[in-house]
Amino acid sequence: MPIQDQAINFAHENSQRFLNEMEEFLSIPSISTDPERVPDMIKAAHWLMDELKKRGCTNIQLLPTPRHPIVFAELMGADAKQPTVLVYGHYDVQPADPLELWQSLPFDPTIRGDLIYARGASDMKGQIMACLKAIESTQAAGKFPVNIKFIFEGEEEIGSPNLEPFIRSHTDLLKCDMALNPDSGMIAADLPTVVYGLRGLAYFEIRLRGQLTDLHSGLWGGVVQNPANVLAELLAGMKDKDHHITLPGFYDKILPLSSKEKAEIARLPMDQDFYMKGTGAQKLVGEKGYSWVELATCRPTLDVNGIYSGFTGEGSKTVIPCYAMAKVSMRLVPDQDPEEIRKSLVQYIEARLPETMTYELIVHAGNPASFTDLDTPGVKALEKALEVVYGKRPVFKREGGSIPVVGHMKRLLNAESVLTGFGLPDDNLHAPNEHLNLPNWYRGIDTLIHFFYNLAK
Amino acid sequence: MPIQDQAINFAHENSQRFLNEMEEFLSIPSISTDPERVPDMIKAAHWLMDELKKRGCTNIQLLPTPRHPIVFAELMGADAKQPTVLVYGHYDVQPADPLELWQSLPFDPTIRGDLIYARGASDMKGQIMACLKAIESTQAAGKFPVNIKFIFEGEEEIGSPNLEPFIRSHTDLLKCDMALNPDSGMIAADLPTVVYGLRGLAYFEIRLRGQLTDLHSGLWGGVVQNPANVLAELLAGMKDKDHHITLPGFYDKILPLSSKEKAEIARLPMDQDFYMKGTGAQKLVGEKGYSWVELATCRPTLDVNGIYSGFTGEGSKTVIPCYAMAKVSMRLVPDQDPEEIRKSLVQYIEARLPETMTYELIVHAGNPASFTDLDTPGVKALEKALEVVYGKRPVFKREGGSIPVVGHMKRLLNAESVLTGFGLPDDNLHAPNEHLNLPNWYRGIDTLIHFFYNLAK
Repeated sequence: MPIQDQAINFAHENSQRFLNEMEEFLSIPSISTDPERVPDMIKAAHWLMDELKKRGCTNIQLLPTPRHPIVFAELMGADAKQPTVLVYGHYDVQPADPLELWQSLPFDPTIRGDLIYARGASDMKGQIMACLKAIESTQAAGKFPVNIKFIFEGEEEIGSPNLEPFIRSHTDLLKCDMALNPDSGMIAADLPTVVYGLRGLAYFEIRLRGQLTDLHSGLWGGVVQNPANVLAELLAGMKDKDHHITLPGFYDKILPLSSKEKAEIARLPMDQDFYMKGTGAQKLVGEKGYSWVELATCRPTLDVNGIYSGFTGEGSKTVIPCYAMAKVSMRLVPDQDPEEIRKSLVQYIEARLPETMTYELIVHAGNPASFTDLDTPGVKALEKALEVVYGKRPVFKREGGSIPVVGHMKRLLNAESVLTGFGLPDDNLHAPNEHLNLPNWYRGIDTLIHFFYNLAK
Repeated sequence: MPIQDQAINFAHENSQRFLNEMEEFLSIPSISTDPERVPDMIKAAHWLMDELKKRGCTNIQLLPTPRHPIVFAELMGADAKQPTVLVYGHYDVQPADPLELWQSLPFDPTIRGDLIYARGASDMKGQIMACLKAIESTQAAGKFPVNIKFIFEGEEEIGSPNLEPFIRSHTDLLKCDMALNPDSGMIAADLPTVVYGLRGLAYFEIRLRGQLTDLHSGLWGGVVQNPANVLAELLAGMKDKDHHITLPGFYDKILPLSSKEKAEIARLPMDQDFYMKGTGAQKLVGEKGYSWVELATCRPTLDVNGIYSGFTGEGSKTVIPCYAMAKVSMRLVPDQDPEEIRKSLVQYIEARLPETMTYELIVHAGNPASFTDLDTPGVKALEKALEVVYGKRPVFKREGGSIPVVGHMKRLLNAESVLTGFGLPDDNLHAPNEHLNLPNWYRGIDTLIHFFYNLAK
């Protein structure tokens, strides 16, 4: 029996144990944005370190950053001529609120039908587990075919503020021939997918202050400006009625899609029905002149992610609030520059802010879009692995989300990232009832077993 | 010594005890909007009933409503020819949040200089206490000169949803010749004030729903509409750049100010400095063509009182929220009708809401503006009392706030309300660090003693 098949047999025989181990990992509420969850962040990092130890890793380290630590490890037992693959992952997850919309508790992994429900199941603890279980299965069949380094960060869901400086200051430790990043996903369970492009992210928090305290709206209403009203005006003005973003120069640097790429994208099965099903929307809305898949993957966006001012409890309170806040983010496409976008937003705000208000702009994230070269050995190895496991040639697509680390690894380590992942579009990422399709997860383990063998020279 | 002076001497001799008793009342956190404070609401009502018992009241009752009960009592010992005065008050207070902005705890009354700091000190537990202590002092000097009924509600700060039906179904119990409502205030500590007009209030909550769940802004951004963005557009469109409200027909029913009233208002010492000091604003902003005092008391307003959507915690979350909410209220002037304003808001929303959204409109309050006839015996008695205690003729003004009960009593009981109160514009009503000026409170007790004697035939 070929060694690949022995590894795959091992994976199939151990599928229930693999699932149990994933449930353990998913039960740790490692929410990076929540200061109260710091102990759970540490717990998740140690859980990974224990797992890496079981895989026979060496040089296992928990490396501090100003906020959440990075897990590093090596599995360098293959011949020196074999490539070194830097496996990236993040052990942090999104917040789970609003809790009342979950059908089962977010950190009590629950299986219903083919799906496992838990915060982080798809994004991306399940993907990390697929890698680790593929490695375990491969090790059970024999010597591991390539060299591996692991880097697992804890800040992806808060925009990875410390990852770029960490990579910059650890280029020797992280030296590699390529990266494997399983934080992407598939279009459908029967459609193996290679992702070659990602949108960037510029995420801001705008804080407006009016008067020094909240004021009684009866006593003082009529003579003062209200920061909640002014914030609404600022946000409303950021898009026109044709859904175009009005920030000065916002579209200037965007590279147009080539007719070849337009044709490739047109072949993806991501039509109106796909997006309506994925979003649950009764009607899609977007810029004119682009297909839905182009709008969701190749065009920039601007969304209010959160807004708060004044009294939001039950009932009524007749205040003129002194403060209003909005979180606003833009998805960026090549070659938009996050710093130029920030400057454009500052220019926009300063041109419109009335002199009764002061503002503060906090940058939560600023990462450009990224691309991967399709001719690298990593992409080829993945393409072949997907074809064997799924029985069909994969499609190639850009993704609407952002994985800034892909850009950092290219720039700082000269490493192309192979993007994969076995989540599906309806996994409810970042939303209540996040889940992962288990049959596809098992196929993911099989795919990664083939991938590692395919990489070996 | 005239009997009035004996009563006033008693008040002066007992000033410290009166203060202590007020502190007791202020320490009860009777926040009507907060379901968790129901026991404190009951406690405050019982505290008042005990106090009324000490005053020798009869027929003391705690009368239920669908939410917070009403305290009723009678003090009908005067001759039948004497007028019956219905004393109105509310024992509920505004929420205290944001707590971190209070210099001392809101329900731990604290004296600094001439001021007592506590939620409800000015609005309006202090005013209720001034009435009750004026009555006690008058009783100490001899037989109480007029007949009194008391009605203390617990829902004023949530728009008095059950007060009108209560008055309607208790017209015999509440039968009276006039009402005394000390929920108003003075322009300055040296400027006795009679309030003859009040703005109305239409308070709404607009809830928008987009998709069924929050969506990942990377995966789906670009093809769906975002209720937070749409809500911002709706709110922004409610006023134009000249601060005019754009709801259809909003200004149609407004009665213009007569030149006589304009002249009266112009004599009030409420100029730009007054409003800048009162609001703490660096610059006032309002409709062109009106003075600041006209804008704050005789013109309608529209303010966002609260807004919420999506992720508002620390850090960032890349969601397209499924839900967005705003609390929006308008101050109304004669003859704007709250129900017509509601219809106008519905018309405005329905004309602009994209078909991707559904909305819900909740009415938290809907009360028209009100006026009091200046020639009633009650107003005359108050005018004379103020002149004696403060040594100058009072000014007459309209107020920017809303006291819906004034309209109910006129309509349902045929009772004019005498509006008074000894709070000042900088008392931080509805805001952190609410306080009451104690020297003025003591003068208020003296004024009310004179008022009751002046009323007697």
